[in-house]
Amino acid sequence: MQIVCSIAAMQRLAKKWRRAGTRIGFVPTMGYLHAGHLSLVKSARKAVGNNGKVVVSIYVNPTQFAPTEDLANYPRDLQRDLKLCREAGVDAVFTPKDAEMYAGRAAANYSTYVVEENLSFPMEGITRPTHFRGVTTVVAKLFNLVLPDVSIFGQKDFQQTAVIKRMVADLNFPLKIIIAPTLRETDGLAMSSRNKYLVGDLRHQATVLWSSIQTAQAIVKKMKSVSAAKLKADLKKFIESEPDARLDYIEFFEPDTLSPVSKVSSGAQMALAVSIGKTRLIDNAQL
Amino acid sequence: MQIVCSIAAMQRLAKKWRRAGTRIGFVPTMGYLHAGHLSLVKSARKAVGNNGKVVVSIYVNPTQFAPTEDLANYPRDLQRDLKLCREAGVDAVFTPKDAEMYAGRAAANYSTYVVEENLSFPMEGITRPTHFRGVTTVVAKLFNLVLPDVSIFGQKDFQQTAVIKRMVADLNFPLKIIIAPTLRETDGLAMSSRNKYLVGDLRHQATVLWSSIQTAQAIVKKMKSVSAAKLKADLKKFIESEPDARLDYIEFFEPDTLSPVSKVSSGAQMALAVSIGKTRLIDNAQL
Repeated sequence: MQIVCSIAAMQRLAKKWRRAGTRIGFVPTMGYLHAGHLSLVKSARKAVGNNGKVVVSIYVNPTQFAPTEDLANYPRDLQRDLKLCREAGVDAVFTPKDAEMYAGRAAANYSTYVVEENLSFPMEGITRPTHFRGVTTVVAKLFNLVLPDVSIFGQKDFQQTAVIKRMVADLNFPLKIIIAPTLRETDGLAMSSRNKYLVGDLRHQATVLWSSIQTAQAIVKKMKSVSAAKLKADLKKFIESEPDARLDYIEFFEPDTLSPVSKVSSGAQMALAVSIGKTRLIDNAQL
Repeated sequence: MQIVCSIAAMQRLAKKWRRAGTRIGFVPTMGYLHAGHLSLVKSARKAVGNNGKVVVSIYVNPTQFAPTEDLANYPRDLQRDLKLCREAGVDAVFTPKDAEMYAGRAAANYSTYVVEENLSFPMEGITRPTHFRGVTTVVAKLFNLVLPDVSIFGQKDFQQTAVIKRMVADLNFPLKIIIAPTLRETDGLAMSSRNKYLVGDLRHQATVLWSSIQTAQAIVKKMKSVSAAKLKADLKKFIESEPDARLDYIEFFEPDTLSPVSKVSSGAQMALAVSIGKTRLIDNAQL
């Protein structure tokens, strides 16, 4: 497995593969890998075949964090990540440095951003108004450096997958996006690097996200169609019955457009963000 | 020469060339070609060689025009353009349609833009605040569709070349930008498709842009260092002595950063925009 630290070396390697007609599958991550990430690696391998190359990027992208967020604390363990990638049959791990990616981020040195101005506005976009601008920018950069034929994203970040698919279509990136299903712990908690923050009783309280999704699924199955406002209010009460849980948002919407629905029925997408203590968690599912 | 109208066909062709190891040189234009454009084609051919492919795009990009500007009137003559491209040895002309490029531009269908937030702010960015956002967006799209190894831009749009070079560096596009010198009519007027608007006496008045550049060059040569404010005031008077000329801006700045200089000396860049009647013209040169 190759470990590539410089952006010039990554692009050179990708161009070499391209010239040889080798297919490239790409999994962008912020590291601290878990089984969810490794399932994306498996999807990438399946997409490019044994003669293709699978690249994983490990980069905690500063532009998608607001100054108040957990950039400095975000969990990191590169040695463990490299071991997991090696075991998963990854061909190259790309670990760029901030200094190269954003040249210090002073506008005099770095000043280009990719913005998506529709799907990025609701939900995460309200609580984290600069988040998706950072995501679309870094993903565009990584696409240009890794030159993938296919790139895999996890369904756990549902709104992110919608924004990325829109960016790829709008800017005509010459690649295919695959969305891979969310992996869950045995009690239903969606796998996330941030679960590491959940110590003591908080870990159990965090299962309230999945429980509320299951509750909504059961209600929709039974009632066929139910008022979104009423369902939100009921689930908010349910969620906040956990002592350290505070609801950020819960939304019901069309999965393709993210347009809110006022009546929730089968096929609607549900997404929610809940803080468990200081840890903000998100989850989603189709009802 | 191939004429490619659909974006899928263009990307397919580019990928085919890429797989074959063929170098691609790209000249993006808004059509109504003149000798300046054809000099860019020559640069592209020189860069990719006789075994490479030269692509010219002809697309009057709506997102770089403000609603008040000359989008509807912008000169078009596709048959003449195709003839000129054929004669110049172009391999493919790409003429996409708005409906495919922007899906109607309703945010529900198209919502991703590339923004440059430093070099695009002064000069053209003041008078045309949404212009460069349209330019960077369409150029990013065209790069992803044509997949060039090298792309050629004309020095006449000096600020545009700075913005594009910054975008390519910041977003890590896997290609090289070449800037080709401005071509001029025998009386010094910089070649531009918009020169077509200059009828009657306006055509002669338009030479005031080049005359004012030459005046500034002579003054700097003689005086070594001169106050930018004083030079601006003097040149404004000079320019507006033409009956139909109105100065939009005239700036003296560092060519790499576009930072204004207060003292103008040899090596400073000068750029100006002047309306001659209803036609807005720009020009620039190093002093």
